[in-house]
This record gives sequence, C-alpha cells and structure tokens, in this order.
Amino acid sequence: MTLRQRCDHVNALYSSISAQGINPYFRPIAKTWGTEVEVEGRRLIMIGSNDYLGLSHDPRVMDASAKAVYEWGTGPGGSRFLSGNMVLHHQLEERLAAFVGKRGAVVHVTGFSTNMGALGVLVTPADTVICDRENHASIFEGIKNTRARLVTFAHNDAAQAMQRVEAAKASRPDGDVFLITEGVFSMSGELAVLDELAAIKEAHPDIIFYLDDAHGLGVFGRGGRGAADHFGITDKVDFIMGTFSKSMASIGGFIAADDEDMLRYLRYQSRTQIFSAALPAANTVAVLTCLDILEREPERVDRLHEVTMRMRQAYRDIGLRIGNSASPIIPIIIGSDEKAFQFSRALFEAGVFALPAVYPAVPRGQALIRTAYMSTHQDRQLDFVLTVLDRLAREFGVRECDMVAEPGQACQDEAAEAAGKAKLSYL
Amino acid sequence: MTLRQRCDHVNALYSSISAQGINPYFRPIAKTWGTEVEVEGRRLIMIGSNDYLGLSHDPRVMDASAKAVYEWGTGPGGSRFLSGNMVLHHQLEERLAAFVGKRGAVVHVTGFSTNMGALGVLVTPADTVICDRENHASIFEGIKNTRARLVTFAHNDAAQAMQRVEAAKASRPDGDVFLITEGVFSMSGELAVLDELAAIKEAHPDIIFYLDDAHGLGVFGRGGRGAADHFGITDKVDFIMGTFSKSMASIGGFIAADDEDMLRYLRYQSRTQIFSAALPAANTVAVLTCLDILEREPERVDRLHEVTMRMRQAYRDIGLRIGNSASPIIPIIIGSDEKAFQFSRALFEAGVFALPAVYPAVPRGQALIRTAYMSTHQDRQLDFVLTVLDRLAREFGVRECDMVAEPGQACQDEAAEAAGKAKLSYL
Repeated sequence: MTLRQRCDHVNALYSSISAQGINPYFRPIAKTWGTEVEVEGRRLIMIGSNDYLGLSHDPRVMDASAKAVYEWGTGPGGSRFLSGNMVLHHQLEERLAAFVGKRGAVVHVTGFSTNMGALGVLVTPADTVICDRENHASIFEGIKNTRARLVTFAHNDAAQAMQRVEAAKASRPDGDVFLITEGVFSMSGELAVLDELAAIKEAHPDIIFYLDDAHGLGVFGRGGRGAADHFGITDKVDFIMGTFSKSMASIGGFIAADDEDMLRYLRYQSRTQIFSAALPAANTVAVLTCLDILEREPERVDRLHEVTMRMRQAYRDIGLRIGNSASPIIPIIIGSDEKAFQFSRALFEAGVFALPAVYPAVPRGQALIRTAYMSTHQDRQLDFVLTVLDRLAREFGVRECDMVAEPGQACQDEAAEAAGKAKLSYL
Repeated sequence: MTLRQRCDHVNALYSSISAQGINPYFRPIAKTWGTEVEVEGRRLIMIGSNDYLGLSHDPRVMDASAKAVYEWGTGPGGSRFLSGNMVLHHQLEERLAAFVGKRGAVVHVTGFSTNMGALGVLVTPADTVICDRENHASIFEGIKNTRARLVTFAHNDAAQAMQRVEAAKASRPDGDVFLITEGVFSMSGELAVLDELAAIKEAHPDIIFYLDDAHGLGVFGRGGRGAADHFGITDKVDFIMGTFSKSMASIGGFIAADDEDMLRYLRYQSRTQIFSAALPAANTVAVLTCLDILEREPERVDRLHEVTMRMRQAYRDIGLRIGNSASPIIPIIIGSDEKAFQFSRALFEAGVFALPAVYPAVPRGQALIRTAYMSTHQDRQLDFVLTVLDRLAREFGVRECDMVAEPGQACQDEAAEAAGKAKLSYL
C-alpha cells in the first residue's frame, strides 16, 4: 500500500466511528481535578488514569514542581550528555535505586525512550529476546530496532518461557539471551508470574532478566517498591525499568541495576539519552517529591489496595468479566469492538470516563473497557461508578451470566429485576 | 562482542578521560540562571545551551508554567490517545501550525519521539529515504526502524540529492521517495540549502519533503518562524518537524503539514504517540507562552542575530576555524579528540561552559567545541568569553594561522604579543 492508501484506510476507520459519535480517542480534557475531569462540558469521574496514587494533584508535589520552575527555568536547554544535566537527575537516580533495591539507576526523558535506548545498547543482532506476548509496545519497538531474534511466550506461561530460554541457548550459544516481562500488564491488570520467571534466571544465571515495572511501581511491594519487591525477587532481576507517568505523577523513565559498569555503559551509549533533551527540573522534582511521600506515607498504597479490592469484588458481584486482574487496572471484557466503543460512549454519557481497548491492542472479539482506580477516589465516586456499571452491564448484556446459553444458569437477577425486586449487595 | 565486552570497552574509554580529569560529559549543573550556571562550585558563563532566546528563564514563561502545575496537576495520567489529552495540546497544535505556516500539527512528548513516530508511520520497507549525512540521530533511528532503504547525500550537496532522488525513482518505482534534511545543523551551525532542496521537490512533486527544523525554529524566518520561512519555501515542504527543547523553553516536539488527512493518520498511528504519556501541562503551557512572546516581541530574534553576528566576527578576528556556521551555533574546530577534551576543560577552568563533539559525532580529526549563543547573553558576558577564547586559542595553537606551514602566513599577532603590543579589535 502506498502512503496515501494507508492514510485513507486509517481515516476511513476513524471517520466511521466518529460519524457514529462513538470515537473515544483523543478526547480533549478541559479541566481536571485528578479523580474527576471536564470533557465537552460534562463533569466525569475519571476511571482511566494511571496516576494510581493521585499524586499529580497532591499540594506538596505541585508546590515542589512549581518551585522548581522558578529555580531552574522551564526548559533543560540540552541533553543530559551535554548541557542539560542537573544535580537533580543524579539525586533522583540515587533515590530510585535505593527505592527499588538496586545500586544505581539511569533516568531518561520518557518511559518509551528508556526501553528504546536501553534495549538498543544491551541487545545485538546475535542475541535472542524472549518476551511475554503482552509486553508493552516500547519493548517490542526497542527489540525491533536491534535486529535481534524475538521469541514470544504465551502470556504468563513460565514453563513455555523456560523452554524458549533453553532452545535459544542451544541454538545460538554465542548470543546473549534476554528474558523480558512487565511486572503488571497495562491492559489486563494482571501481575506477572515473577517468582516463576525468577526461577528461570536462577536455573540459567547467564541470561539477562529485564523487568518493565511501569505499572507495578508505587502499586506493589512494600510501600510501592514494585512488583519485584512484592515477589521478593529483586536480586534475581538484572534490570528494573520503571516510568514516572503512572504513580510518580510526572513523565520520564529509569532503568536500575546492581552492575554499575553496565549502567555507565548505558548512560554513555543510549541513543535516546544522548540525543534527547533532559527531563526538565519541574518534572524531575515531581518524582523526587513523590518518593518522599511514598517513603513517609505507605498507607497511600494500602488505600489503593482497599479501593482495588472493593471494586474488584463489586465488579464480580455485578457479574462483569474481569479476567485475572490483580491490580488497580480492572478490565471489563465486552466482546466486539463496536460494542466496546458504544459501552465507552454510554459511560461517558452517564458521567464516567473510561476507554476501550480494541483489536489489535487485545485479541479479536476480546475488546474491553480499561478501568483503573486511584487511592484518591472517594467512596461516593466509587458508588456512583458501580451504579452506572451495573445498569450498563445489564443494558449491554455483557455480564458473565449473559454469555451462558443454558437457561438455568442465565442471569437470575434479570428475572428478579423484571419483578421489580432487583437488589445488589453493594448498594 | 558480548554485552560484557562492549560494556568494558566503553567503560575503559570513559575511565581514561575521567582519570585525566577531562571528561566533559554529564557535568552536573547545581544552579542555573540561563546564561550562567554553577558546576562543581564554579560559576560559569553558559555557551552550550539550546535555549537560544533565553525564554526558559523569562518570568512570563515561568509564571504560566507554574500556574499550569496547579491548574492541571504535575503528571498527564496517560497517553493523549487515552486519558492524557488536554485542550492545551490542541491549542498548541493550532498555534504551532499557524506559526510555521501549515494547516495543522501533531504534538509529541519529545522531539526524538516525533521523528521516530512520524517516520515509523510514513515510511515502509518499499520506500527510499534520502538524507543529508549530517541529519540528527533521531532521523536515522526512525528510518532504521522502518527497514526502508536509506541513501545519504554529502552534506548540503543538493546536486547529489537530486541524483539520489532520480536514481531512487528509477530503481524503485513502486516505493515512495522521502527527502529529509535539518533546517539548521546542530553541530556545524550551518543552514541547509533549503532553496535548492525545494527545487528538487518542485521538479519531482511526488517525493515527500520532510524538514527537521529543531534548531531553526525561533531562530530563522520572520519572528523565528523557522528555516523554511527564512527561505520562503514553506509551501514546498510536506512535513515540518520541530522541537520545544531549544527556543521554546520546554521539551516535546511536533510535526506540521497542510494535509489534514495525513496528520490524522499520523495522530492515530504513531506508536510513540499512542504508547507514550502525554506532554504535561506545565511543559505545554511553556511553549504556548513562548509563542505569545515570539509573536509580540520579534526583536528577541533580532537581538539573537546581533549577538550571533558579533560573535561570529570576533571568532574570525581571533582566527578560530568556525566552518560555515550561519546560526547561533558556532563550532570551534580543534582537531584531535584529546585536544578538544583539554580545550573544553581549560574553558571550564577559565569560567566558560562549552563542550566538545568528537568522533563519531564529527569526522575523525575534526573534533570541535560546540558553542551556542542566546539573545539574553549580555555584552559583558560575551566580552569575557572572547577574552578567554583568544587566550586559549593561542595556548592551544588552534587558530587558522597556527595551521599554516609557511612562515610568512603564520600568526602575526604572536610576534606582536611577544612584543607586548597585542590588541584585538573587539577588546
């Protein structure tokens, strides 16, 4: 296809959903209060943010960030390699390393560029990279760029990952073997089976175990120290990568490791580091302040889990299909892409902001609404969301029991509702 | 080489320059006032920043950015595609498009990711990309990722570029042909021959002409509208890419075009856009405020040219070799890598911050000190820098006349200096 044909193809797709009034993407937020936003004149409860601890609107984080603007100016003026490197970046690297339990860390300007830059330096065409199939796009882009052999394993299937590692070592004895997973998967909300993957590293200490913990940092582990800490396998991971655009209320990313030579190699060679402007002071200080707060107030993470457990149970009570979610990210599996677009639109009209993930982001026929909760969500907001979800789940027929063919197992509460006696446990 | 060998190799290199006390990279800035910085307890005049208009420290930019922190929070909470898209981003896109003279624009979170994302969507393996050899790393990385055929032309050699275009069209009639250049080259400070390249587009309207104007925006053209505006060839360029980490006192990047379908295609397909967190409000508002200031105070750009012309002339008077610099970026060609490291260290000790570019960033034996000027540099700072440069140029023997073998053409002022009568025109 020529560029023009590809362009027309994509535009036709989006024109079609836009014409139906169900295009959910690039919705312009006009105001935000963290857990609530204003879009197209409506005030909505936000259940689609990655700001899991709500720290983007914490007065201490905002104060420190605004102060940094005056102390350092708004722009970095250059790359860290040349003229944009601030003592703040080194302070942040030390704090992050200590937080996740590694000796050192290297900060990049985005999470995407952290994976691109780090993999670009670590991996060569002679190597094999073994990836969970649901890993983030930035990991796959990073690997693609290296020309290494990419091998995937079925999501969270450690036995298959072990087979892949052994096959790679046998067939390409001269190349390095990388094992890469996310800590928490961004669409399904599942935790990786890090204990089982760590056992592979233990059996094959010469492989390089790389963990992208973008959605685990601030959420799992003691005081939010991440998924590796949660499983107690931090010492088995060679590289822990994390981002600041989720719980850390900023943008940016880092990679932490115990091997300081390797970190220095990365620092001096990563092309996204050398050829990108540095993370500005305001964004850097926001992360430093989040770390202060996390260290002093681990109860924020507890509150997040309280909210998460409540919502997960309530979703199950409604009968929603949520897969194996174990985190604040709770997907609602809808089915067809079109139904997911319509469900998202109905949520919007009912005052709730949550967006669909459709093919190819998820398998065909498994379109979902990605919902995500924050420690700052208030109970009244959660109650409201559940009332809306309960109503729409019935209207759209997306409950577990709606999928069952046998009449005996079909939704009992529909009959009850028809008789005007519907009650759900959480109301 | 295994990963460990590559790591050891790089570490040996940097250990050696660090041991000599001449490692100029990742110097931690402890304080900044824009045109001056504090590093390792020394106050230095900064002549290595890309903040050409000094707007990072403009009170209006800082105020607006700090205010945005409180209005919007510190983090975006998600990608623009999903939950992080703000009306601010759309406002910025409209303003940028109008500023550079295009119909629309798409903002990304960094300049690097703008090139990566845009080229990843525009270019396929069937295509040929014809690049100036001195283009930025993010362009080459972006092309590498597409698997397209990459063809370079000698720096600023439009005749060769034309040959390459014609050869590509003849040999691969089914693929698209892209012609990519920077507007201002970041190391040499040279302007691209955009008028000559535009003539190629005119002769072959079906090629796609892509301009990376990272260092031209805010510097060239009417009121800083960029290098295409400077040459009056804006309508010949299909895509104008720019960044915010130079004159726009922030981080981020954008791509502007007249073809709105193409921009929508880009917006919905660019992987660095969809899978990266959005540019935070504080960084976005900084750019909006810079555009306000540029539109109201075009004299800032005039002052930048005044500073630039003065310094260029003074460099020539000293006898420094500055190549074909035509912008605020004025390289000082030193020669060997080691001498460049030592020159940079001597500048540091004399109170001036400017860093070397060595092989492979520049050809072997052409190591240089990259100096760059700002409209906010004061005359007393410039005087100081010139005094230092004059002294060091003599000490290091890096003047044009130091390179001449014939005694009759050797540096005359050395003899004069010996007689205690040295005077330079600018003192």
